[in-house]
Amino acid sequence: MSCVVVCSGGMDSVTLAHLVHDEGRLARLVTFDYGQRHRREIEHAARLAANLATPHDVVDISKLRGFLSGSALTDDVPVPEGHYAEDNMRSTVVANRNPIMFTIAFAIAAGAGADSVAAAVHAGDHFVYPDCRPEFVAAFAEMERLALDGMWRIAFETPFVEMSKAEIAAVGGRLGVAFEETWSCYEGGQRHCGRCGTCVERREALALAGLEDRTDYEDPDYWQSVTGANAPGVT
Amino acid sequence: MSCVVVCSGGMDSVTLAHLVHDEGRLARLVTFDYGQRHRREIEHAARLAANLATPHDVVDISKLRGFLSGSALTDDVPVPEGHYAEDNMRSTVVANRNPIMFTIAFAIAAGAGADSVAAAVHAGDHFVYPDCRPEFVAAFAEMERLALDGMWRIAFETPFVEMSKAEIAAVGGRLGVAFEETWSCYEGGQRHCGRCGTCVERREALALAGLEDRTDYEDPDYWQSVTGANAPGVT
Repeated sequence: MSCVVVCSGGMDSVTLAHLVHDEGRLARLVTFDYGQRHRREIEHAARLAANLATPHDVVDISKLRGFLSGSALTDDVPVPEGHYAEDNMRSTVVANRNPIMFTIAFAIAAGAGADSVAAAVHAGDHFVYPDCRPEFVAAFAEMERLALDGMWRIAFETPFVEMSKAEIAAVGGRLGVAFEETWSCYEGGQRHCGRCGTCVERREALALAGLEDRTDYEDPDYWQSVTGANAPGVT
Repeated sequence: MSCVVVCSGGMDSVTLAHLVHDEGRLARLVTFDYGQRHRREIEHAARLAANLATPHDVVDISKLRGFLSGSALTDDVPVPEGHYAEDNMRSTVVANRNPIMFTIAFAIAAGAGADSVAAAVHAGDHFVYPDCRPEFVAAFAEMERLALDGMWRIAFETPFVEMSKAEIAAVGGRLGVAFEETWSCYEGGQRHCGRCGTCVERREALALAGLEDRTDYEDPDYWQSVTGANAPGVT
């Protein structure tokens, strides 16, 4: 049993990598460079690969950038601030991003002789990103079964697909994940901004999981004004 | 109604491009540069795009080459000669090639505001390539429907999926396709070799369709020794 984990360097996929590594099944980590604004996540994935002594493929698909249009993550349009909510976060949808990344991950798994690909899609993304939902995951797995039929047999693992980000944070907490060594911010600065949708979501998830948030934020308190939260350890 | 056609420059996808163009629906052609040995097909696709006055995207995915291993089409292993038959042509299977190319084509279609993607998968490939079969096509379309749900609605057209290559050649003949301006050979030379699986298949298809083959082959007679054919116009 060996598994290729798609890892952005964010808290969910880093937790997933730790989970698979703990089970002794981690074959490789795969990270995509698609010209994203928040390139620091790639460095964080590389550091994780070194920590776990695991081969790491950084797949450069940045030449696709001109085709992956209409998204605040790659284009020169502002990243929305505030809480993850359908209306403002729709501008972060990159058309067909997950299908492209996952098909490449399956090719890597075939080349590496691995028998599964794992990805950290989760319930918190369902309402914004259609390619994170359970029905997409099932259809993708079936498509790959048929695409590789008779040649390779590679399963698709998405253990977090019905979990909230806070539940994933709790899993990471139990596994001892150093969340301060993961990257979430979409802004691409040197520190987490604390204001963009993923920063607010990250802060909230760690608080709900009862974990201390050691992340260095430019605006550490903004999230409370958006979520109305009053988390332990946060004043 | 506008359609993005995945076009390698080979006879099947060039025929497909003409078919969609004749219907007034051709939005763009998309060709993939994946480090294939037979790069001349890319030039043939570019010429077609110029002839049809259609925008042409050549998508460079050659950086994936290291991951698309185990295939005679990209690696330094011999291209098999002779007739298309499962045993010798299996070495031309690139793991997950069609899923990767088609997901990128769907992203391009989303960016271009097109409402379909068309690909020239056909029945002659079913026994070698799992990702050319009708059940794969149906699963892929369903996966994309869910991946883009609520954001984009893009259909997947594969009008040749139940046709033989000879039947496609006949369609091309009716549309006036200049087959001598298409490229099939897997060897990557200046002329069609006439001996590799796709050359033999091409020669046979045009003969079965009753079309004159104006292609310049290095070994124009080899195919008959393999197929046992005695086609009109060929001595």
